[in-house]
This record gives sequence, C-alpha cells and structure tokens, in this order.
Amino acid sequence: MLFHVLYLIAIVAEAMTAALAAGRRSMDWVGVCLLGCITALGGGSVRDVLLGHYPLSWVQHPYYLAVTAGAALLTIAIARIMHRLRHVFLVLDAIGLVVFTVIGCNIAFELGLPVLIVIMSGMITGCVGGVLRDVLCNDVPLLFRSELYASVSVVAGGIYVGGLAAGLPHDPVMIAAMAVGLTLRLLAIRYGWNMPKFVYTQDWH
Amino acid sequence: MLFHVLYLIAIVAEAMTAALAAGRRSMDWVGVCLLGCITALGGGSVRDVLLGHYPLSWVQHPYYLAVTAGAALLTIAIARIMHRLRHVFLVLDAIGLVVFTVIGCNIAFELGLPVLIVIMSGMITGCVGGVLRDVLCNDVPLLFRSELYASVSVVAGGIYVGGLAAGLPHDPVMIAAMAVGLTLRLLAIRYGWNMPKFVYTQDWH
Amino acid sequence: MLFHVLYLIAIVAEAMTAALAAGRRSMDWVGVCLLGCITALGGGSVRDVLLGHYPLSWVQHPYYLAVTAGAALLTIAIARIMHRLRHVFLVLDAIGLVVFTVIGCNIAFELGLPVLIVIMSGMITGCVGGVLRDVLCNDVPLLFRSELYASVSVVAGGIYVGGLAAGLPHDPVMIAAMAVGLTLRLLAIRYGWNMPKFVYTQDWH
Repeated sequence: MLFHVLYLIAIVAEAMTAALAAGRRSMDWVGVCLLGCITALGGGSVRDVLLGHYPLSWVQHPYYLAVTAGAALLTIAIARIMHRLRHVFLVLDAIGLVVFTVIGCNIAFELGLPVLIVIMSGMITGCVGGVLRDVLCNDVPLLFRSELYASVSVVAGGIYVGGLAAGLPHDPVMIAAMAVGLTLRLLAIRYGWNMPKFVYTQDWH
Repeated sequence: MLFHVLYLIAIVAEAMTAALAAGRRSMDWVGVCLLGCITALGGGSVRDVLLGHYPLSWVQHPYYLAVTAGAALLTIAIARIMHRLRHVFLVLDAIGLVVFTVIGCNIAFELGLPVLIVIMSGMITGCVGGVLRDVLCNDVPLLFRSELYASVSVVAGGIYVGGLAAGLPHDPVMIAAMAVGLTLRLLAIRYGWNMPKFVYTQDWH
Repeated sequence: MLFHVLYLIAIVAEAMTAALAAGRRSMDWVGVCLLGCITALGGGSVRDVLLGHYPLSWVQHPYYLAVTAGAALLTIAIARIMHRLRHVFLVLDAIGLVVFTVIGCNIAFELGLPVLIVIMSGMITGCVGGVLRDVLCNDVPLLFRSELYASVSVVAGGIYVGGLAAGLPHDPVMIAAMAVGLTLRLLAIRYGWNMPKFVYTQDWH
C-alpha cells in the first residue's frame, strides 16, 4: 500500500522532470504530455516487452496515463516555481529510481528468471525511461554519461536479490535495499561522484 | 474493402514522405527503403508489441514490406515532381492519420481493452511511425513540436470509441470520426493551428 | 558447436567496437558496458520482440550479458592498441554480420514464417544493433548512409533461404551463404563500394 503510494509519487516526479526537459526543447503541450508519459512509464514498458510480461502496467491501469499526463501539464502551470523545488525533485527522482528498481526485480523474480536477469530487470525499469526521454530530446542519454544512476540501481537490486536468496524476510530486505540505494544516489549528487569516463578520440573511418 | 484500399494508400503515402526525409539526410537507397518501411509500418508494430498482439501485420502480410519499400524507391525516381505534389501528399498523410487511428482503435477494441487504451492505441498507430522517422533522422520528433497531429488522432479516436460505446452503428460512426479528424487536420494545416508551446529555459545542472 | 563459438566471437567484436563509439562520446564505464550489450544483443532482441519469440536469448543465457559487458570494459584497457587491430575488427564485424544473419533466418524459419520475413529476420538480427548504437550516440545510423551492410545481409539471407527452399542440404548451404556474404562485405570495404545515395534538398515547410 505504502509502496503503491511511493510508485505514484515516483511516476509523477518522473513526468514532471520530463516536462521540464520538453520545455527546454520548446515542445508543445501534446509533446509535454507524451514525453511525461513515456519517461515515467517507458522503463516498465520496455522491461515488460523484453520479458514478454503482458499486459503492460498502464494497459491494465489506464489511470497511470492520466496521472502522468496530468502531472506533465501541471508542470507547465507551475514552471516558475519548479526551480525552487529542484532539491525536492532530486530526492523524489532518487526515490523513484529505487522504487522502480525494486518493482522491476520483483516482476523478474516472480517469472522465475536467473539472478542476473532479475537485477537487469530492476535496472531497465529504473533507467530506460530517462534514456527514452533523452533520445526523444535528441541528446546522448545522460545515463551513459554522468553520475551514479544505473550503478545505484544495480547495487540496490543486488542487495534486494542477494537478501532474498539468503532467505532473509522480504520487507526488511526491501527497505535495506531501497535505503542503501537512496543514500548512495543522494551522496553521489551531493559530492558529484561520477564513474570514470572513457575518452577515445581516434577515428577509424 | 474500401478501407483496405485506404490503408494501402496510407502506407504508400507515409513511405514516400519518409523517403524524402531520407533524401534530406543523403541516405543511400537501402536507407530510403528501410526508413520508408519503418515509418509506414512502425506505428502499427509498436502498438502490437505494446499490446502483445501477435503476429504483427507485416509478418502476416509480407507484401506490405514490398509495397512500402517499392513506394520509397519510386520516390527517388520521381523526386523532381514531388514538390509539385506536396498538397496531394498533405491530404494523403491526413487520410493516413485517420485510417491508422481507426485501425489502432479497432484492434484494442477487439482485445477488450479499456476506452482510454483504445484511444491511445489509435494514437500510437497514427503517430509513432513519424516519431521513429524523426529519431532515425536525428531530429526532435515533429509530433512533439508542431501542428495538430496527435490531437487530431485523439479527437477522431474519441468520436469513434464514444459513438460505438453509445451503441450507434459501426460504419456511420467510423465515417464520422474519420471525416471530423480529416477536416480538423486539413484546417490545422491551412490556418497554421498549433498547440501552445511550453518554453522553459532554466537549466538545473 | 563451431557456430556457437562464431556467435560468441561476433558478440564480443560488436561489443568492443561499440565501446569505441562510446569512448568517442566520452561516456562513462557504465555507458560503455550498456552500449556494448545493447549493440551486441539488440538486433536479436528487436527480432524476438517483433516476432513474439520468447524468451530472448540473453534472458535465457544471462552470461551473454557478462561476456559483452566484459568485452566492452576490456576495450577501455586496451584502447591504445585497438587502432592497430582495426583490420582484424573489420573482419570480425563482417563475420558477425553473416553469423547474425543466419541465426535470424533460422529462428524465423523454425517459426514457419514466409520467405520474405525469414530474410528480414536475418537482416534485423544483423543490422539493428548498430542502428541502436548510432541512435544512442545521437548519430544518423551508419546503416542508412554507407557501405554495403544491410544489402550483404539480404544477399546472404537470400542464398540461405533459397538453398534450403531448393531442398539442398543445410550445412553446405549455410557455409555458402556465409562465404558469399563475407566476401561481398570485405570487397565492399576494400574497394569502398557504396549504394547510390538519394539527395533531396527541397524543404516543404
């Protein structure tokens, strides 16, 4: 129940930050709504398509579309104060990352998939929405370039899967995985932790 | 039957305008064919994948691939006169939009999906082909930026679904939905109607 | 057995060239791993999703993910000598193209799909990984712009399917298809063979 509320907060936060990305590209209101929905629900959709897990969550619960499109439109109305709320949104986005990760792990787990795929399923759920947003905004995905994001998802997913595999009880393991992931992500933002970059300048052509 | 002819006209028109987009990026003949097929058949393919509706239409009817690839190649031959035909193609593209929309609504309807998903299925069928074309041409999708396009699809889909839900007979409802959508789209082109844009210039990073 | 070894060599080669593309965009180590996996395994994944052929190969054999991510990371370590190995990699990439093509044809063949779809399945398996790589690197896909690549895949697939349809024994047909495809691809690189380009400069808007 609490978890479902966290999920709704997460898709709202994802849709609102996607709406700002749409505004940076001067998209129209339709584009803002679509980019909000795709960013918030795209990670789970790609996961379900790759795992053959039908129906997709927004097909089963169409109000997810209304919630994310509504959140994206609301962002247009309150765009002026969004900048002041940016620390709130960084935290909400981090909560979204760990919530999405746990959901993704759970779905692969219930399908009886191998451990590595369970962790990948969490990472795809947490990260692919942002990749779709960046591709549609014609950017190289941020995920590939900066900050601990996919890595946070892999760590949280690893703790969750490892704890369950060790026979520990579900709820404490889930809370520990989310707490570690959230802390790691917020520390990474606060102190600017990055993965090392690979710079290659030679051209073969 | 007439509807099937309209569908073939629509995929030919989509493939031909996609071929011109390929030409603007100096793609080779293979790229022209591929972009034509992806643009014309991509919206329906994404819809089917998201809804788990197999087999995809072009897998069942492979001649759709031949028709769209052939139309794209033909465009290279008649590129010189395409500019004079541009008003014809704007009308054909608008017809394609409403035909695709009705097809997409129908498929979701037959799967027994909720009303909102039926309308989304129509919009995905009508609009995603162009989004794939723009992403592959390295542009921000036009759909997100200009003109009434997705909105026309939503209006046409809404009339179609609403009419059927109200128990009205199928064919008149379908014709009405298509007529309203087509008129709205052509008026939007003629008078340059646009959705309002959301412009946001602050950068959080 | 030999074929499986060739497949592993192919996904390693694809992941390593993708890692260099990631390095040209200064991606971080996570981005390098992800781009390597997506490029090496994306063609087969898109094929399976389009054909509804579950589970995907890397879901069934998760060590493919470890192999491709490991190959991508290794590339960072040996980046300095990669330039000297570029002829080796062009050959490995060409081998990968024909191996992927034959695998893709086989899967569609076993699903009992029409000849044209069998050839498309080979081409999707061989070519889409590189398209995903280019889209994620924010480039217009090379596939659409240069060299005989998709065409090589279509020729190899056509020989393979045609030979089987003519009742010839499987192994010689497969070897012939791969040999012709490989030769054609290497000749195309050596002599700079290209498909003709379609250049269209008029703008309708």
